[in-house]
Amino acid sequence: MENGLIMENERVDDLNLGNLRLIQNPEQFCFGIDAVLLADFAAKSIKKGARVMDMCAGNGIITVLLSHKSAAKSITGLEIQKPVAEMAQRSIKLNALEKRANIVCGDLKDAAGLFGKSTFDNVVCNPPYKETGGGLISENESAAIARHEIMCSLEDVIASSAALLAPGGKLSMIHRPERLVDIIILMKKYKIEPKRLRAVYPSYKKPASMVLVEGASGGRPKLLNLPPLYVYETDGEYTDEINIIYERSR
Amino acid sequence: MENGLIMENERVDDLNLGNLRLIQNPEQFCFGIDAVLLADFAAKSIKKGARVMDMCAGNGIITVLLSHKSAAKSITGLEIQKPVAEMAQRSIKLNALEKRANIVCGDLKDAAGLFGKSTFDNVVCNPPYKETGGGLISENESAAIARHEIMCSLEDVIASSAALLAPGGKLSMIHRPERLVDIIILMKKYKIEPKRLRAVYPSYKKPASMVLVEGASGGRPKLLNLPPLYVYETDGEYTDEINIIYERSR
Repeated sequence: MENGLIMENERVDDLNLGNLRLIQNPEQFCFGIDAVLLADFAAKSIKKGARVMDMCAGNGIITVLLSHKSAAKSITGLEIQKPVAEMAQRSIKLNALEKRANIVCGDLKDAAGLFGKSTFDNVVCNPPYKETGGGLISENESAAIARHEIMCSLEDVIASSAALLAPGGKLSMIHRPERLVDIIILMKKYKIEPKRLRAVYPSYKKPASMVLVEGASGGRPKLLNLPPLYVYETDGEYTDEINIIYERSR
Repeated sequence: MENGLIMENERVDDLNLGNLRLIQNPEQFCFGIDAVLLADFAAKSIKKGARVMDMCAGNGIITVLLSHKSAAKSITGLEIQKPVAEMAQRSIKLNALEKRANIVCGDLKDAAGLFGKSTFDNVVCNPPYKETGGGLISENESAAIARHEIMCSLEDVIASSAALLAPGGKLSMIHRPERLVDIIILMKKYKIEPKRLRAVYPSYKKPASMVLVEGASGGRPKLLNLPPLYVYETDGEYTDEINIIYERSR
């Protein structure tokens, strides 16, 4: 069992990026394409030597991907659920990334206290998508926390990011398009200026299914609306760009 | 000279839509593709019998287009520049649209006083794009007023729209992508909920050049991010969708 790193009910997935692998528990939240797209989007703004915060780190997928896709000096994953944080830390070990990456178990609402203010050049966050207002939550608790705004709201995420970011530092997020208005309103409220917007479309004729948004702490207003990112070709295969992001040849 | 409707320095352009024509003065602001895209975008939300306000009407292009593209009961163009408003009114006459359309010369900041509050089902606006803050304005005065926020700001446009719209009424705008953040912030401020967003891309690989945005007065939060609208094919020809909007066969 990989030097005792893998627990019962867990599996090891080959990420097909470098030799990276990730430990996941199929009974809990497993990463999806959104994490991969966000890591790629955020990596474009991560400079060599940057200090990066992966907020709502979950199983550590984005921390692990950014170790490969960026030249960050350090990547810190912050995850509130202890068993999930521990599993993510074991993925760090499994990939021998301890020198650059680590996972901290904690509440993002305390992040400025835990890490200090203005201590990161980039915050990357794949937050829970669903508001808790309505709707029955029938999943197991761990997956529910990953998907729903139970432990943190969108405002908590953006407020904490604003506190953690050094001036000019970037917050990169992915979310549902229907939350774009809230993201923009909240970024402005916390002095993070939206600078890059990229909508993700499942196919050529459908509305967007996700939006990638990046803001700069204290930045000058000027939003760039990037070309759309399409996931699937009409034949159901990944588009060339998705294959490039996954570093696959078609 | 078309029964005295056309003045010196003016020309009559065939819009190739129905038999519609438009009087323009080439020395002043002439309409562009943005007006055509906005009219098409807005028309999708104009119900039969609707009362429509075309704010910043200019030469009346949107008023004229909407007479063809919608089943609105009335379309009122509001234009602050007297000679421009008069020219637009002559285009209404030229197309024999007086029963459904008319142009009013006035300041949109007084619109609620002129027309009464909550008196329109749709407001459509192709506002001046450029902020007046920096940059030399070297154009002639009339064109400068059409292009720059000299006589009205984006906030004036959205505040006036909010006053004019009946509950649930729609504000449809086109603007530069770099103003999207301001549009969303201001719509929220004046209780117009952004509901439809469509970015316009000049070609397949470039960032968006324009955004179409629609909000509903007092609407429930839920933004739909529509598929991108591409203007040109790689061969430099209009895309099929643009040809459909122009009602041309390729």
